[in-house]
Amino acid sequence: MAQRNIFLKTIPVAQALERARTAVDRSRLVARETVATEAAAGRVTAAALFARYSSPPFHSSAMDGFAVRAEETFAAREEAPLTLRPGENCHPVNTGNPLPEGTNAVIKIEDVVPRADGSLRIEAPAFPWMHVRRIGEDIVATELLLPQNHRISPYDVGALLTAGIWEVEVWEKVRLTFIPTGDEVLDFHQRPDPRPGQVIESNSQIFCALARDWGARTERVAPVPDDPQRLRAAIEEALAGPSHIVVVGAGSSAGSKDFTRQVFAQVGEVLAHGLAISPGKPTLVAAARGKLLIGAPGYPGSAIVCFEEVIAPLVAWLGRRDAQVRPRRTVRLTRKTPSRLGAEEIVRLAVGTVGAGAVAAPFGRGTGVLSTLIRAQAVARIPAASEGVEQGEEITAELLVPEPSLERVLVHVGSHDNTLDLLTNELMGLAEPLRLVSTHAGSLGGLTALKSGAAMLAGCHLFDPETGDFNFPFLHRYLPDLEVAVINLAIRHQGLIVAPGNPKSIRGIDDLQRDDIAFVNRQRGAGTRILLDHHLRLAGLRPQQVAGYGREEYTHMAVAANVLSGAADCGLGILSAARALKLDFVPVAPERYDLVIPASLLADRRIATLLGLLESPEIRRRISGLGGYDTAWTGRRMQSGEGLPG
Amino acid sequence: MAQRNIFLKTIPVAQALERARTAVDRSRLVARETVATEAAAGRVTAAALFARYSSPPFHSSAMDGFAVRAEETFAAREEAPLTLRPGENCHPVNTGNPLPEGTNAVIKIEDVVPRADGSLRIEAPAFPWMHVRRIGEDIVATELLLPQNHRISPYDVGALLTAGIWEVEVWEKVRLTFIPTGDEVLDFHQRPDPRPGQVIESNSQIFCALARDWGARTERVAPVPDDPQRLRAAIEEALAGPSHIVVVGAGSSAGSKDFTRQVFAQVGEVLAHGLAISPGKPTLVAAARGKLLIGAPGYPGSAIVCFEEVIAPLVAWLGRRDAQVRPRRTVRLTRKTPSRLGAEEIVRLAVGTVGAGAVAAPFGRGTGVLSTLIRAQAVARIPAASEGVEQGEEITAELLVPEPSLERVLVHVGSHDNTLDLLTNELMGLAEPLRLVSTHAGSLGGLTALKSGAAMLAGCHLFDPETGDFNFPFLHRYLPDLEVAVINLAIRHQGLIVAPGNPKSIRGIDDLQRDDIAFVNRQRGAGTRILLDHHLRLAGLRPQQVAGYGREEYTHMAVAANVLSGAADCGLGILSAARALKLDFVPVAPERYDLVIPASLLADRRIATLLGLLESPEIRRRISGLGGYDTAWTGRRMQSGEGLPG
Repeated sequence: MAQRNIFLKTIPVAQALERARTAVDRSRLVARETVATEAAAGRVTAAALFARYSSPPFHSSAMDGFAVRAEETFAAREEAPLTLRPGENCHPVNTGNPLPEGTNAVIKIEDVVPRADGSLRIEAPAFPWMHVRRIGEDIVATELLLPQNHRISPYDVGALLTAGIWEVEVWEKVRLTFIPTGDEVLDFHQRPDPRPGQVIESNSQIFCALARDWGARTERVAPVPDDPQRLRAAIEEALAGPSHIVVVGAGSSAGSKDFTRQVFAQVGEVLAHGLAISPGKPTLVAAARGKLLIGAPGYPGSAIVCFEEVIAPLVAWLGRRDAQVRPRRTVRLTRKTPSRLGAEEIVRLAVGTVGAGAVAAPFGRGTGVLSTLIRAQAVARIPAASEGVEQGEEITAELLVPEPSLERVLVHVGSHDNTLDLLTNELMGLAEPLRLVSTHAGSLGGLTALKSGAAMLAGCHLFDPETGDFNFPFLHRYLPDLEVAVINLAIRHQGLIVAPGNPKSIRGIDDLQRDDIAFVNRQRGAGTRILLDHHLRLAGLRPQQVAGYGREEYTHMAVAANVLSGAADCGLGILSAARALKLDFVPVAPERYDLVIPASLLADRRIATLLGLLESPEIRRRISGLGGYDTAWTGRRMQSGEGLPG
Repeated sequence: MAQRNIFLKTIPVAQALERARTAVDRSRLVARETVATEAAAGRVTAAALFARYSSPPFHSSAMDGFAVRAEETFAAREEAPLTLRPGENCHPVNTGNPLPEGTNAVIKIEDVVPRADGSLRIEAPAFPWMHVRRIGEDIVATELLLPQNHRISPYDVGALLTAGIWEVEVWEKVRLTFIPTGDEVLDFHQRPDPRPGQVIESNSQIFCALARDWGARTERVAPVPDDPQRLRAAIEEALAGPSHIVVVGAGSSAGSKDFTRQVFAQVGEVLAHGLAISPGKPTLVAAARGKLLIGAPGYPGSAIVCFEEVIAPLVAWLGRRDAQVRPRRTVRLTRKTPSRLGAEEIVRLAVGTVGAGAVAAPFGRGTGVLSTLIRAQAVARIPAASEGVEQGEEITAELLVPEPSLERVLVHVGSHDNTLDLLTNELMGLAEPLRLVSTHAGSLGGLTALKSGAAMLAGCHLFDPETGDFNFPFLHRYLPDLEVAVINLAIRHQGLIVAPGNPKSIRGIDDLQRDDIAFVNRQRGAGTRILLDHHLRLAGLRPQQVAGYGREEYTHMAVAANVLSGAADCGLGILSAARALKLDFVPVAPERYDLVIPASLLADRRIATLLGLLESPEIRRRISGLGGYDTAWTGRRMQSGEGLPG
């Protein structure tokens, strides 16, 4: 067995950062460069900038109007107007014009009354320097405009040009090279179709996009296989180039092919390995040849924490920029979220406003969850010294989206269905777009989320074999105290997922008794299993007659994967799972897919918009167009006991 | 007299924006384009994106460890460990590896005990799917990844590549062409040295930098003179190009050379002229050939409001992006700020935190104030229906800088001196940089600011001829209730500002009685005038003996400008004013420049850092190096009656 890295002791992120900042000399590492002022917005000054010209460079008019000598107007009154003659005792000026010699005030165009003979009447005196911008009033040549280490704003660019500063000395952009590693890793540039065991390398592109947001220049080299010699060669090459930070993707963990630590120790000094943060613990921080080396975890969730908590602050420090700060907002947690002592935990949240407050539903903390990353609106930190946060507790969320956009979020938790995807897309096409954020937790998961206030709506298709009805029997059981509206989204078909071309000509439930057919089932309690049992009964079949009835999988996709691999001939599931693996589908069991919505939210503008959308014939056409849906009841508010149409 | 545009009636900004959004069809104006996914961060989807591959595409290990069939481990207990044999009933796996056929759980490497014979011991059972990421758990092929009109985040890029989406259809970037206008306008590309009446065009670069921050592509053409034919030609050319918005800089106001409105009306339809906002009122909104035309005011302060309140929301709307939102914070206003009814007023603020709160000092509202723009940390809005905000009132400030950076701001109001510029730059070079934000309001202005809490320190050089002391007599008079510390920054010289080469050989105050010398004075009450009177008395001269004693200017720079133009031979002022206009300087009157700091702030970390800096011999060397300063008392806490050293 190869040697593995096991983290016996983690250190706090702040300590790892301090070690990194001590290990390299940023003044030697990051050079200065000169850029044209008009291209300098966002850059950081490497030296103080002093004005060369004053602004205004002369006394100038601050208004469109007439320049006068104030002392000559002192007698003007409403009851005793004064006459001014252009070219004699007054001079037309536009905003910005130099004041004519001998004048010291400007009367606004609005405050003069033109007369037929070309003269003007004023009814109030001017005072000295009225509406005049005096020389140097704004900027005096030689004065400091910007100090060193100042991030140049668009406004600053205007001031610099006005003051005659044509170019500025700035710190060069921080440069970062990303080296992906792993035998199993495919280069996305090849547009690969991964086989089992292979993954498409994408962390580099998340890192590069994030780093660009932090003002860095990024480069990514082709993936390096799990081979210490080749990894070392790639690192040496990156260190020899212009980069200030070299990041090695994956390989810093405890796996038998994780060579990053060993290679870092060969080329430089390991400063920290194993951080007291979760996810992100396997992060590795090292220094070599005056540069920084970072080993980033491979899982996207961990990799992003590594970037945002470790790499980004170092990019900011090297570039002498303020660390980016996310807007914060107090939210109420909809689910108890335990946390291990000893590591700061970063939890991603779906956040929606309800009334004046905001509720946050923590996403599950599987580390590889891209779908979580793309749906979260915020993150929360649970400190290392905390054992977690209770349901209903208020915490500070760091927002990943602009705060006002929270008002446009519809939080859905429940069963997934393709019609929801269609709605999600349609809602983003409205003049006032709404973002339907959907967490796939199954029908019962959705009802639980409604109960705790973690969702504004729940997609639900629970069949009750005793009554033959959908959803209502379960609402009475699980949400007895919550008044809800049940709105039909569509009637959909579950069906038998079969191999492409349906080689065994499976036509329906009756065929499950055939000797040549191996079935794969869902776990006990799954809605799909309940539906299967009902249809077996309708067909007069007993479970024992179905080969493979006892073989259980936990998701539609796992069922489909069994069919794809040939381990089974068919299983009951939804059309999208079949399509996902390019399998065929035999519809057999219609079911009602409803949206369950707390009655208190029916007046909410977002819910009203969603329900309005369901009234549109266009939407019904599109749902029908997906295939496998019946929209006879779409948008209808259901009552208990209605079962299925027709 | 040429025809002028006078705004008889302004309309609210929201109404002007609504007219603009109604006048153009963004679906026709802004096209779609396809970009590589890895380059798509920050872009906005033009169509829904669905996953092509699932993630994981197979059951895979979520940990480094050993894959097992869970059912075979159910007997393992601490008191009855189970032995596993790699290759037989367990298989080493790294994170991300596919699960070997027949296994359904992973035991973490930390949870197995290796034995000498190569076998492993476990003391607890695995449960099915423990540490396994199941096929499609994260993303199911065919499901919606991103809806239309969604701004692609760095995380999204990772999800898209993982799901096999190599390119994405996005809305093209919004394109903006800026046309500067004005006979008096110089092109900064020429690196001009402006003569009176000329100004360097820089608004275009502020606009372009701001627009790039909003995701737009920008182009700026060479300045167009004040000629309606040439302006029309430039607009026609811009409309024929790829730009979605054409902005004409200046010329939309009421001046006799403001042709923008007339030309807009020729090529298209004027939608709004004169907005109920200040500054920014002369903004012009029009549409032509399905594109937007904006006439922006010429003053930078107004121009920026026009960009941020009118152009930016239209850029966001065309690009289908969320409008950028500044972080907000409650601040206490240090000065009464009146506002006219009928127009929303945008006020720029210097904001500093003091204890847990933040105080905000409104900058003066001259519209052309670049120095304000580069120093403000926030803006506040005074609604159209309000007559202003009282001193001490709490208001919401929109922050222009990251909120934590407010903790690093030192707010100075007072007299300007070059040593302050030096300190400002040094403070930004510290490991924990501090930003000294300095408003030049004169010595008495500084004391007033201390009184109202609008400043944390005030630079002060007030001479009291009765006692011969500096500053203390004024503190007793103006700040009787505020306990302050007075720290000397330096002894500096005021002097006679004379023409280059000192052609009249002016040596000192005595020369002011010479017949061939014309003097220019400061206004009554100015510290410099008091100092002059004192030195006249010391020299035994009466004001009547000084030709030009009655000629008053209000600033050092205005005095220097008189010398530059030859209107006077000399005036008393500070070295930097002479240097600003490349004049010569004859030092005559030493004075003490002190920092006045409320005693309550002496323990503040920022003030302590500043005072610590003054103790450094290096800083004293640098102050001396500026020329005209004596640092004998620099950093010393002064007592009443000490006057000048030596």
